[in-house]
Amino acid sequence: MKLRGVAIGAGYFSDFHFDAWQRMPGVEIIGLCDQYESKAKSKALQYGIPNYFTSIENMLEMDDIDFIDIITPPVTHYELVKKAADKGLAIICQKPIAPDANEAVEMVNYAKKLNVPLMIHENFRFQPWHREIKKLLDQNLIGELNKITHFCRMGDGWGDDAYLARQPYFQDYKRLLIYETGIHFIDTYRFLAGEFKDVFAKLRRLNPVIKGEDSGMMVFEMESGVWITCDFSRFNESNAENARYTFGEFTFEGSKGTIRLYPDGNITIQKLGAKETKHKYMHNQIGFAGDCVYATQKHFIDSLINKTPFETSGEDYLKSLSIQERIYAACSI
Amino acid sequence: MKLRGVAIGAGYFSDFHFDAWQRMPGVEIIGLCDQYESKAKSKALQYGIPNYFTSIENMLEMDDIDFIDIITPPVTHYELVKKAADKGLAIICQKPIAPDANEAVEMVNYAKKLNVPLMIHENFRFQPWHREIKKLLDQNLIGELNKITHFCRMGDGWGDDAYLARQPYFQDYKRLLIYETGIHFIDTYRFLAGEFKDVFAKLRRLNPVIKGEDSGMMVFEMESGVWITCDFSRFNESNAENARYTFGEFTFEGSKGTIRLYPDGNITIQKLGAKETKHKYMHNQIGFAGDCVYATQKHFIDSLINKTPFETSGEDYLKSLSIQERIYAACSI
Repeated sequence: MKLRGVAIGAGYFSDFHFDAWQRMPGVEIIGLCDQYESKAKSKALQYGIPNYFTSIENMLEMDDIDFIDIITPPVTHYELVKKAADKGLAIICQKPIAPDANEAVEMVNYAKKLNVPLMIHENFRFQPWHREIKKLLDQNLIGELNKITHFCRMGDGWGDDAYLARQPYFQDYKRLLIYETGIHFIDTYRFLAGEFKDVFAKLRRLNPVIKGEDSGMMVFEMESGVWITCDFSRFNESNAENARYTFGEFTFEGSKGTIRLYPDGNITIQKLGAKETKHKYMHNQIGFAGDCVYATQKHFIDSLINKTPFETSGEDYLKSLSIQERIYAACSI
Repeated sequence: MKLRGVAIGAGYFSDFHFDAWQRMPGVEIIGLCDQYESKAKSKALQYGIPNYFTSIENMLEMDDIDFIDIITPPVTHYELVKKAADKGLAIICQKPIAPDANEAVEMVNYAKKLNVPLMIHENFRFQPWHREIKKLLDQNLIGELNKITHFCRMGDGWGDDAYLARQPYFQDYKRLLIYETGIHFIDTYRFLAGEFKDVFAKLRRLNPVIKGEDSGMMVFEMESGVWITCDFSRFNESNAENARYTFGEFTFEGSKGTIRLYPDGNITIQKLGAKETKHKYMHNQIGFAGDCVYATQKHFIDSLINKTPFETSGEDYLKSLSIQERIYAACSI
């Protein structure tokens, strides 16, 4: 029998969700809700979803719902989680969790109190290159890891029309770079290298038309002793064909060599004293960023079926969020 | 009439000096001194230098010496500068100036008191790509500069035999990475982006066989507001054909685009919204690192002839040294 889900939110990113659900065996999305009927209707039609709603309450009155996928803006998440948790549904909810850290904690606690499974839809750690590199690191391929260097230039944040095409509300975010995007990286670093110890950060606004920060330099020391540097700007541009595939270049250095991740998804290995060689693995330019939305949603479904913990449970994700808060506390822009 | 110079020190790096002097019109090296007679003799023979010595005093008794080139280890510099300054010679002296900052200040003051021209042989800022990029920045090609990103992996510092082939005494340096090499970068950043304001730094030793630090991460904010990040390791390796040509990759980002310097000396320009294109300029794989030793020594000679200030006068170089001291003060390894 298939797991039956409903979804709320039909904005820019929801297409990646619906596309992934549609391709996933063992799952059917039986209802879709959006505040705008036209959007709800057209997306439902597009993805073969049999019911659409403009009211969450109406949608949740359907029979035999197993889970809800929350794809709306952060400001709505807590209320929606409450309603879904009250119905006992398993929840997968997009990030950022909430407008601020307090509300995020409350939301996570609410689901916990009702013993409802809550996973945050954090997809970066599920990108195929990070899964592959984590495996290589665990195999001790480059010895003891000492440094992760991440250089990311999204280049969608310059000019008066910055962000308008894709996510226009970004211009008004008081916190942009880390709150919206850097949180992905923080979580991915935790996946790759464990928990954080020291945080150094500088943030600034390069484009005067926006309210928040669009550029930052972070230096982290992890509990393991690994250093991670994150040099991140949405203003300046990458020279990659596609700056939104791997979201930057990564270098992993250890006592025995170097692993590099290139913006086209290529991974190379260079043992100390040897030549750099290409490492073969599977990754595809389908869906979002190596089809990581699919992998994230698949992890949610598999964990529900197997009753195993989510990697990015609400509780776990609060750890990533606490690093975000330390970064903002270290800077004022 | 030619300028007549003498030189002291016939170690690893002196070949670059003698080769450059030999190619330079208007200069002749008339004497060479080294504590080992065999080395002094063979280098003198190799470069057509008519006299060799094992005593600096004897060498300085020659007639009509205009300048001295000091190519010995730092611990000897102050004494040699004193002797040369007492004779009224113009001095070009290798870096590091001295074993510690106090001695460096004393040495610079000594030459100043005697009104003797003293230039520090700091060659990195004279590398052709930095001269070219400085010109492009001054032409406002990428608008207002906001960031310089420098990633350098020398890779000569791993294994039990680290540094033994070229500069074996490096293993015993209590300060290695910044004192010996990072000082080049500091001075180059000053050339490119003016004076320093804030200094963040982390240093560590990755190779346990050495005494000093071989790896570091620095984040600088300049008085101009430009951020500079220097991610530097002598332990881990580059994937460049030659890691000792440009000494790393550089990215210069501004309000209108990006200039990139690749390890093979290629410079590219990428205006915002446009493709990355190659920028043509002159650079050659002769001498050391784009023949910057030649350019440095040429600057010394030209400045003497034209009675213009040295870019890297003793006094100016103390500013670079003060940043080195701030870096070490910020860290203990």
